[in-house]
Amino acid sequence: MGDFTAPIASGSFATLGMALVPCSVRSLAEVATGVGTTLLTRAADVTLKERRRLVLLVRESPFTLAHLRNMEQVTLMGGIVAVPAPAFYHHPTSIEALVDDTVARLLDHLGLPSPFRREWQGTTGPAAPEPER
Amino acid sequence: MGDFTAPIASGSFATLGMALVPCSVRSLAEVATGVGTTLLTRAADVTLKERRRLVLLVRESPFTLAHLRNMEQVTLMGGIVAVPAPAFYHHPTSIEALVDDTVARLLDHLGLPSPFRREWQGTTGPAAPEPER
Amino acid sequence: MGDFTAPIASGSFATLGMALVPCSVRSLAEVATGVGTTLLTRAADVTLKERRRLVLLVRESPFTLAHLRNMEQVTLMGGIVAVPAPAFYHHPTSIEALVDDTVARLLDHLGLPSPFRREWQGTTGPAAPEPER
Amino acid sequence: MGDFTAPIASGSFATLGMALVPCSVRSLAEVATGVGTTLLTRAADVTLKERRRLVLLVRESPFTLAHLRNMEQVTLMGGIVAVPAPAFYHHPTSIEALVDDTVARLLDHLGLPSPFRREWQGTTGPAAPEPER
Amino acid sequence: MGDFTAPIASGSFATLGMALVPCSVRSLAEVATGVGTTLLTRAADVTLKERRRLVLLVRESPFTLAHLRNMEQVTLMGGIVAVPAPAFYHHPTSIEALVDDTVARLLDHLGLPSPFRREWQGTTGPAAPEPER
Amino acid sequence: MGDFTAPIASGSFATLGMALVPCSVRSLAEVATGVGTTLLTRAADVTLKERRRLVLLVRESPFTLAHLRNMEQVTLMGGIVAVPAPAFYHHPTSIEALVDDTVARLLDHLGLPSPFRREWQGTTGPAAPEPER
Amino acid sequence: MGDFTAPIASGSFATLGMALVPCSVRSLAEVATGVGTTLLTRAADVTLKERRRLVLLVRESPFTLAHLRNMEQVTLMGGIVAVPAPAFYHHPTSIEALVDDTVARLLDHLGLPSPFRREWQGTTGPAAPEPER
Amino acid sequence: MGDFTAPIASGSFATLGMALVPCSVRSLAEVATGVGTTLLTRAADVTLKERRRLVLLVRESPFTLAHLRNMEQVTLMGGIVAVPAPAFYHHPTSIEALVDDTVARLLDHLGLPSPFRREWQGTTGPAAPEPER
Amino acid sequence: MGDFTAPIASGSFATLGMALVPCSVRSLAEVATGVGTTLLTRAADVTLKERRRLVLLVRESPFTLAHLRNMEQVTLMGGIVAVPAPAFYHHPTSIEALVDDTVARLLDHLGLPSPFRREWQGTTGPAAPEPER
Amino acid sequence: MGDFTAPIASGSFATLGMALVPCSVRSLAEVATGVGTTLLTRAADVTLKERRRLVLLVRESPFTLAHLRNMEQVTLMGGIVAVPAPAFYHHPTSIEALVDDTVARLLDHLGLPSPFRREWQGTTGPAAPEPER
Amino acid sequence: MGDFTAPIASGSFATLGMALVPCSVRSLAEVATGVGTTLLTRAADVTLKERRRLVLLVRESPFTLAHLRNMEQVTLMGGIVAVPAPAFYHHPTSIEALVDDTVARLLDHLGLPSPFRREWQGTTGPAAPEPER
Amino acid sequence: MGDFTAPIASGSFATLGMALVPCSVRSLAEVATGVGTTLLTRAADVTLKERRRLVLLVRESPFTLAHLRNMEQVTLMGGIVAVPAPAFYHHPTSIEALVDDTVARLLDHLGLPSPFRREWQGTTGPAAPEPER
Repeated sequence: MGDFTAPIASGSFATLGMALVPCSVRSLAEVATGVGTTLLTRAADVTLKERRRLVLLVRESPFTLAHLRNMEQVTLMGGIVAVPAPAFYHHPTSIEALVDDTVARLLDHLGLPSPFRREWQGTTGPAAPEPER
Repeated sequence: MGDFTAPIASGSFATLGMALVPCSVRSLAEVATGVGTTLLTRAADVTLKERRRLVLLVRESPFTLAHLRNMEQVTLMGGIVAVPAPAFYHHPTSIEALVDDTVARLLDHLGLPSPFRREWQGTTGPAAPEPER
Repeated sequence: MGDFTAPIASGSFATLGMALVPCSVRSLAEVATGVGTTLLTRAADVTLKERRRLVLLVRESPFTLAHLRNMEQVTLMGGIVAVPAPAFYHHPTSIEALVDDTVARLLDHLGLPSPFRREWQGTTGPAAPEPER
Repeated sequence: MGDFTAPIASGSFATLGMALVPCSVRSLAEVATGVGTTLLTRAADVTLKERRRLVLLVRESPFTLAHLRNMEQVTLMGGIVAVPAPAFYHHPTSIEALVDDTVARLLDHLGLPSPFRREWQGTTGPAAPEPER
Repeated sequence: MGDFTAPIASGSFATLGMALVPCSVRSLAEVATGVGTTLLTRAADVTLKERRRLVLLVRESPFTLAHLRNMEQVTLMGGIVAVPAPAFYHHPTSIEALVDDTVARLLDHLGLPSPFRREWQGTTGPAAPEPER
Repeated sequence: MGDFTAPIASGSFATLGMALVPCSVRSLAEVATGVGTTLLTRAADVTLKERRRLVLLVRESPFTLAHLRNMEQVTLMGGIVAVPAPAFYHHPTSIEALVDDTVARLLDHLGLPSPFRREWQGTTGPAAPEPER
Repeated sequence: MGDFTAPIASGSFATLGMALVPCSVRSLAEVATGVGTTLLTRAADVTLKERRRLVLLVRESPFTLAHLRNMEQVTLMGGIVAVPAPAFYHHPTSIEALVDDTVARLLDHLGLPSPFRREWQGTTGPAAPEPER
Repeated sequence: MGDFTAPIASGSFATLGMALVPCSVRSLAEVATGVGTTLLTRAADVTLKERRRLVLLVRESPFTLAHLRNMEQVTLMGGIVAVPAPAFYHHPTSIEALVDDTVARLLDHLGLPSPFRREWQGTTGPAAPEPER
Repeated sequence: MGDFTAPIASGSFATLGMALVPCSVRSLAEVATGVGTTLLTRAADVTLKERRRLVLLVRESPFTLAHLRNMEQVTLMGGIVAVPAPAFYHHPTSIEALVDDTVARLLDHLGLPSPFRREWQGTTGPAAPEPER
Repeated sequence: MGDFTAPIASGSFATLGMALVPCSVRSLAEVATGVGTTLLTRAADVTLKERRRLVLLVRESPFTLAHLRNMEQVTLMGGIVAVPAPAFYHHPTSIEALVDDTVARLLDHLGLPSPFRREWQGTTGPAAPEPER
Repeated sequence: MGDFTAPIASGSFATLGMALVPCSVRSLAEVATGVGTTLLTRAADVTLKERRRLVLLVRESPFTLAHLRNMEQVTLMGGIVAVPAPAFYHHPTSIEALVDDTVARLLDHLGLPSPFRREWQGTTGPAAPEPER
Repeated sequence: MGDFTAPIASGSFATLGMALVPCSVRSLAEVATGVGTTLLTRAADVTLKERRRLVLLVRESPFTLAHLRNMEQVTLMGGIVAVPAPAFYHHPTSIEALVDDTVARLLDHLGLPSPFRREWQGTTGPAAPEPER
């Protein structure tokens, strides 16, 4: 992780985008402040600089003010901050299904097609889930 | 949800705290701005006003600037904003185990004991998970 | 409260101003953010838009950060935020006298004459109240 | 407007974008703050969350500080806030022509082709309109 | 436009107020920042300095962050920023009627009487227009 | 009030907290800015510094921007700003009852038991007061 | 200056407004922050609170960040901050004429008539002063 | 540069984007504030308003706070601010090669293909340049 | 310091709180921004996230803007920032006494009892120290 | 004023500093925003960029929010904003004496010696002027 | 402390700078806000106004938000805020040595030579102190 | 780079200033935030703390919001942020000449004399370069 001469550390190396999965609150902070101590966050900095697609999947919480301000700065820079909260709308029956759903959403935010992706079609029967309050 | 004369709509009704699980981005916004259109968010406003414990479990993402600023305002008011991201450190084998873990964390943030709670004891074997980057 | 086609919902209907008495923290929030879910707060929005006089008499407290920021935004928009704290300078002997005093102050802030209004003439005797610290 | 289980209330329902025409200052406020009390503003929140195209055509004015800060927040979130001010460059002869022009501009901002669209080609004769001051 | 020794360039020349119709985004910017490169915006600066009435009728959109922050600064200085969006409540039948309505509103914001002014009286029949969403 | 060598002027003197009743807008300003010109506000500064409980009962209004920003700063420092607005939910019949209620609320915010304290139990009869708008 | 029970220390004592001439940077700071240590600045606080006219004639400079932020806060509260810089447009021949001009401007900002007031009529001859750069 | 009726001064004239090369700190300021005194900066304002691609190549430095805040505002509006700092990674042997590299980077940011463009492939030999500190 | 799988790097490991003594300006910065490059600052991040007690004893000065903004952010997150400035009120006669006093204050801020703690009882004799100006 | 190729328009031309006397609010705005439309304000921008001494002698008032924010930005950039308010401490007997005093102060702020400069030695007699309130 | 006609209360009295040792949080607040109630803080205000050197040696802590924002404002005005935290690098053996070190540092920040000053020469032996974390 | 006990890591080691050439966006971020992970950025932090001269020569671009906010914070702390953009005013004929010019400018900002330094003398002939737009 310490080889800063790798191609992805330079803006002249063309990529479509990048995702950090999962993204620790430290990596989030490094991307937000620009203090890139690893090749990973250095590459994310380049991705933002070149206005390419960047998705951070943050998993830790509760959020502190620092976490939230970091997420705000990344968002204002064009990055996409998401959390892998499981969705129960499709009645998943296994952890794998939950993970598939998260991956599908992630690919969607990166602008890539996914075999797992299912659209929400609205509720059609009496067992429709409660809308969140 | 529309009965604003219920006891929890008044600060003089003593509670230990309150949790919104799950908390939609709309409810988050209502708590953050004070526009409490439902008894639920009205009660959350009272909870913050009386400096009692409030936990919001936000599930939707990616976050917009509005979501993040709302979470920041709730946090500055003393509320706790968390997300139900599943933890894989304990090698859960079912969705129920994931949910139990989230509930345990939630009870912890509310200051209540939980039968599900397990402490992270550090990694002791060769199969320890990679730390997040 | 739900008829948004009433005359006061339009800026072209001329009024001298408007007061919300009492003004709940929800109404305060709706006026401050512009989320006018009732005819009352919609009309207050129009009053501010047309630069007419608006007085909000907020009664609930303690104040949260959200309440204070809402009061600040209303104040910057030209609105007047007051609280009905009873004044003891005139040695009121009944709740009615307290209410009269609040109403007199309110009419004063709306720029209307009041039969209840009494000016503070300074302390002239040995029993003058302590100045607040 | 109250059916929050419609497909457009979920981010997993793919759309190209969305326009609110006209957009009241209340809807503007709901989109800016995230307090989506209607299906319409809930869907706009999802549109911003999924980084799709959102156009708000605001008609009411003068603007208050609340309106302007709401427009600023929507703009920072990637939304496009426009007003249907009539253009007189093409010497419209009817209200319909004005409306066509507004619709053409709107489709343009949504990234859709329009049969009404005319480009400004600069002034070519002595009767060219005064530039705005 | 370049004669800065004209009377209106001095605060000691008493006026009731001033309107810029239409007000380009450049003039808006000059008034907001104080960079008055023309007699027009120099006079507007004086009008704000002397706390007289100033109305800017902005016509161009969509708004950028710069436009919105300029409008916010003018508003905080006591200026009134409006847009000439046509109103359809009175069922106008010609462009002239739309213009008359805009002029009437403008005179109203300047505090001057207008022969065109009509108040909105609420909807009284079955054909009342939809309230804006 | 000028003896700054009194015990409460030092953080090493342990107290549970402190209340300023009533708290003038000047005292509020001194606590918010740290300009403690009296022993009272010096002691309040120490109370905040030591993260003990501080309650300010502000009585004067309308609020100016300065008052509101001071209240916001005190609130962000952990202080509690309240106003002695009388509550009519319990149908008080004398000024003494109103004062008792305010004192009870104050003791509650200081975390002390009160003989006057009554909880709001919701409305149970046809004469229930209108909820505030 | 220390008698805080004088009539002008109460909002219920009606005045048209108030001017501080000259206003030291300390008085400016007290008005801006609300820390009114003298009757003078206490009365200015009341003047702002009651939305009456307040003019501060600041004489000291250069300005520090503190002075400027104080002037900004007073201005946002509706106060008028001016400086007694001499005007040479009317070719004054004595210090008294300069002072008269400053007084005339001050009365103007207080909304009072002045015998000294002269309007700037533009330059009419070849000896017109250079416009300021 | 003074012909504001040229096609590029109108949003209805479709372009892919625009670059200012070099962009003086004055032009940067005009784009950031909206004070467009030339056709060039007027056109840049339109480019941002229509959400098209805008690249500013700023050459002057050191940066003042004004320059930096202007660059921040342009960046938040979606513009791209770059500087023509020469890259030595490819061992350029002439000024022309440096200029080619800057032009290639510029075309890249405008989304256009370039014959000069070379990707950074990482360092492969012992003479690889030191990474910047 | 690099073992991020230690128990204190996880929020699920319950502690009462944590102190960094001394806390370098780098560690302060890491806690404030969330860029936790060591186990120590990672653990501090977790402590803030779990709303446990965190005390930073900063020793270096003068403070830069960066240091102060970092201290402000930590303070807003609920952390306690203190400096080990020696107190001379108790007439210490050795460096050990000074250190004891600092340790006693620290334990106090952590909420732990201390054998060194002495309360300031006010000045009782003629040799009382001057209050600080 | 329009020759931007003069030496003072370049940072490489060494000067000790620069003063704008008097400085109009337009020039102030140009320096603050960086929109330098004249050689004068372009040179001031260079002076700030090169961290040389810059003094602006602003004469116009009352100040608007725009003026004050411009003065704040110039001050944060290291510029010195002063006003030519006459000082009466030395009992000047002519306008020339007032002007001399202003010039002496100005030279002082530029770091240059002045024949006019007199230090304030405190009041020594019974006729000492009142300190400003 | 109350004689505001002393020479140091005027900017025309030339000094090299000034130090407040120790500086109470009240004096810090007075310097930061400009509310100079004593000759000491009045003189500090003048020192900042004249851009001379000002050092504040703050001793009290923990810091509140008010303290930190005051220190930030003083720092932005060019003042230097330091704390007398003892340094143990030189192995001081008495309280006097600690005080000497603080005085030496203070003189250094005032730009004055000191007989106590010792430079840190790096660690040269095995007993070098641990770097702070 | 990891030896934090080197002399330059301590403020007591007197230097005239420091330059980072080139300064990566990571080093910029470390200086701006105070997260000094290397001896280089630690020394820069000390340089700012001791109010000595610091020059950062940033080479990477386009700038993100993080880069710009970091540059702003460094600038507010007194640091000088420059970019090595080549100047063509002197018609350089080799890369070495460009580099010499950058070095000369850098020495100038550090306050050191340079053999390379040439002043811009204005344009004197018909081939003068176009001023930048």
